[in-house]
Amino acid sequence: MAIKGNLVVGQSGGPTAVINGSLAGVLAEAKKYKNIHKVFGMKHGIEGLLKKDFLDLTDCSLHTIQGLRVTPASALGGCRYKVKDNDYPQILEILKENNIRYFFYIGGNDSMDTCNKISMLAEKEGYEMQVIGVPKTIDNDLPVTDHCPGFGSAARYTAVSTAGAGKDLEAMKTFDDVAINEIMGRHAGWLAAASALAKNDFKDAPHLIYLPEREFSIEKFLEDVKAIHKELGYVFVSIGEGIRDASGEFIGGNKEDAVVDAFGHKAIALGNGPAAYLAKVIKENLGLQARYSRCGTIQRSFSECVSDTDYEEAYLVGLTAVKCAVEGQTGLMITLERTSNNPYTCVAGSVSLNKVANVEHFVPQEYINSQGNFVADQFYEYCLPLIGKNFPRYVRLI
Amino acid sequence: MAIKGNLVVGQSGGPTAVINGSLAGVLAEAKKYKNIHKVFGMKHGIEGLLKKDFLDLTDCSLHTIQGLRVTPASALGGCRYKVKDNDYPQILEILKENNIRYFFYIGGNDSMDTCNKISMLAEKEGYEMQVIGVPKTIDNDLPVTDHCPGFGSAARYTAVSTAGAGKDLEAMKTFDDVAINEIMGRHAGWLAAASALAKNDFKDAPHLIYLPEREFSIEKFLEDVKAIHKELGYVFVSIGEGIRDASGEFIGGNKEDAVVDAFGHKAIALGNGPAAYLAKVIKENLGLQARYSRCGTIQRSFSECVSDTDYEEAYLVGLTAVKCAVEGQTGLMITLERTSNNPYTCVAGSVSLNKVANVEHFVPQEYINSQGNFVADQFYEYCLPLIGKNFPRYVRLI
Repeated sequence: MAIKGNLVVGQSGGPTAVINGSLAGVLAEAKKYKNIHKVFGMKHGIEGLLKKDFLDLTDCSLHTIQGLRVTPASALGGCRYKVKDNDYPQILEILKENNIRYFFYIGGNDSMDTCNKISMLAEKEGYEMQVIGVPKTIDNDLPVTDHCPGFGSAARYTAVSTAGAGKDLEAMKTFDDVAINEIMGRHAGWLAAASALAKNDFKDAPHLIYLPEREFSIEKFLEDVKAIHKELGYVFVSIGEGIRDASGEFIGGNKEDAVVDAFGHKAIALGNGPAAYLAKVIKENLGLQARYSRCGTIQRSFSECVSDTDYEEAYLVGLTAVKCAVEGQTGLMITLERTSNNPYTCVAGSVSLNKVANVEHFVPQEYINSQGNFVADQFYEYCLPLIGKNFPRYVRLI
Repeated sequence: MAIKGNLVVGQSGGPTAVINGSLAGVLAEAKKYKNIHKVFGMKHGIEGLLKKDFLDLTDCSLHTIQGLRVTPASALGGCRYKVKDNDYPQILEILKENNIRYFFYIGGNDSMDTCNKISMLAEKEGYEMQVIGVPKTIDNDLPVTDHCPGFGSAARYTAVSTAGAGKDLEAMKTFDDVAINEIMGRHAGWLAAASALAKNDFKDAPHLIYLPEREFSIEKFLEDVKAIHKELGYVFVSIGEGIRDASGEFIGGNKEDAVVDAFGHKAIALGNGPAAYLAKVIKENLGLQARYSRCGTIQRSFSECVSDTDYEEAYLVGLTAVKCAVEGQTGLMITLERTSNNPYTCVAGSVSLNKVANVEHFVPQEYINSQGNFVADQFYEYCLPLIGKNFPRYVRLI
């Protein structure tokens, strides 16, 4: 028998194109249970909760819920507030005051840590509350889950934009030489790796991919670029924003510019970034014309290139969270479990929050080629089903 | 009676997402006339022609032609070669050698100039050849034509990316303050202006738009940003890449980096650009967090955000060019003529090449607000029909 009481849901960390799909899943499913009385949204995640800044979503219409599914970025507001140890008792107090018995937090690594601590405190204090984490991150770096909602859509955007800009560069090779595209993902290279997914042959972009999982060497990079340019007359390079050199310094990272967020992570996107820097390095060292692009948050919020797989799965993890909670489960993060790869099928599962809190899942070495400048075949197998329907096959005439 | 002989078609200047649609229109229509014998493509435009580097497209299948319609960037290769006065006699010689009687050049301002000169020389020399320019440019800066194929799709991309990244910024306003997006268009602000097209209310992005058509003042810019930030807590700014200060210098333009193309145009996109620079200016002067993005050639080559209107019109101008030529017309550029705005209808027309060669069409002052920091209502009326089907309406909860 599900406990009677109110529900709160929040969104945390950087948004995705489908994070509101997970919110929609929570809201739609919550409507089905009469033991769930009021439904509240935290405004700007745990920051809003601490300020008792709730939005009453109890009567949210199905029309609005459907609208959420096509609305990018966190409709409740995201946050980057790191919960301090002495915030937790206050959080629990506020939850009790509002008779919150269902707590859902849609977020990434840091949010799962917050979730875990709230869950443990509630248990310790004997306050019955179902606490479930709902995974979300374009970085795809949560452990245990096969992949993270939000990643597939950003990956599709990355693949499509790389394929198109690659065609552009190839067409303009009598004028342009090199294009460098800077791709999000912080310390994880999943998204940069995904830039390869629309490549069909050697001429297609990208020709080189550098992931933060491998130490970056400017010398090797210049050699790689030079070799491809000699062969094709143009080179398209995908760069993970978090690539670092042997000493652990971010490439192109300007220490004066560096901004550190509440979790102590360097906010790479707020500096000038590696792509602008490497474009200069190429010009100076190889004498080649180099352009760079950096789509920034457009990568994670572009609503016309959503993966249909991701769209469905983001909703699925939201509604599964509510299902698990009303069954009395708590202290979990919902996961996605791939049950078959061909045809691709996937179901929702769960894992204990303490197994995922603060753990980062990086691109494994077997997904990277031996030279460390491209992905391996296994990566395609893993990633292609996640980005949704097939791409149209482009025509090459020359 | 249409003249008997061969056809050549080329693509020039920067690519678009639908420039191959115009090529497809030429190829599909050419199949209908038995007086058109061989069909050749110039590889990399006039550069290829001068090298006699042709591709035989006579037997190009309808399947390939359909494939071209969804393939971004110039499938024949683009070029930025400025034809020299003493190239023209050679060009005519090569055209005669190959019995070219139909000459089609898909391009922008500079290409129409090339087209015009070839047309005049052929006429002067008494060589019967139908020369037709097919308009193309994401910059939308060709005169006479209501708009340019390629612009609508880039405009849609710009509108969708701005709306999404704006939602992202709004969600993250407790951490981020300002986002600046650098938009292509060289000296014309059409594309930067189009970033407003998915905005529904004051909270939506963009909040400020700066076009190259107006002199840019850093002081005014900082005042504008400060005022919006005070009101909303976040500010999304669209910047035309070609904005300049009172002395005519590009904002953020690094003279050492500046690259000049064959036409003497500064290749703005090869420098560091105004967005990165203005992000720094904001940090230093207002103490606000500022991100920047610069999608570069992704803006003009993104195949999953094509305007359906643009898709059809790009094809239309290609096939109309062939129709006009077989009717014996020459020395023309095909135009698009809007016959009604509600519902939007548009037909193909034509204009003498000498009226468009080297003429740039800028955003008129009545499309810009009095403060010079946003578009006026008339711009929406003009531009909305060009970007295709309606956007989904996003939901705002807080």
